[in-house]
Amino acid sequence: MVNANETPQEQLLRLRASIDNIDAALIYMLAERFRCTQQVGELKATNAMPPSDPAREARQTARLRTLALDADLDPDFAEKWLNFVVAEVIHHHERIASER
Amino acid sequence: MVNANETPQEQLLRLRASIDNIDAALIYMLAERFRCTQQVGELKATNAMPPSDPAREARQTARLRTLALDADLDPDFAEKWLNFVVAEVIHHHERIASER
Repeated sequence: MVNANETPQEQLLRLRASIDNIDAALIYMLAERFRCTQQVGELKATNAMPPSDPAREARQTARLRTLALDADLDPDFAEKWLNFVVAEVIHHHERIASER
Repeated sequence: MVNANETPQEQLLRLRASIDNIDAALIYMLAERFRCTQQVGELKATNAMPPSDPAREARQTARLRTLALDADLDPDFAEKWLNFVVAEVIHHHERIASER
């Protein structure tokens, strides 16, 4: 979608507008993910299930690496990204458990 | 959407299926974000623009914090998340610039 008449600054602004739209979508999807993991945390705390689940996390990692390859995203980055998000989720789960 | 007849294990599986759907959406949106930032990196390298842009990043952070509040997501987490993604982007930009 490069327009030959665009200056580099105009191209930059066009790309940044797309990045801003994508970031809004990502933030709302992340919020929805945390709504789900919040419910998981409450379920685990109510039923004395452990906050983390290494077997589940291994399956998630393998699946996201496959999805990343299909999407042409670096699978190592996808894995690091999942670890970053899951660390926050486990922190939330521990807080929910400690508040009971 | 809690079904009173569900066991805790069934509730967990239902929530995890939603998390897996959301993660697929997030991975594909992240891939699209990197397609855009890849173009930004090439544009910057071609036009000798600096890889990072602190003023742009400050505006992005403020905007994502506002979006996070609207989405009921912890704005501190949204900011940490953006920093994590932007660090990877700057790493890509530096690699593009060094390859020229």
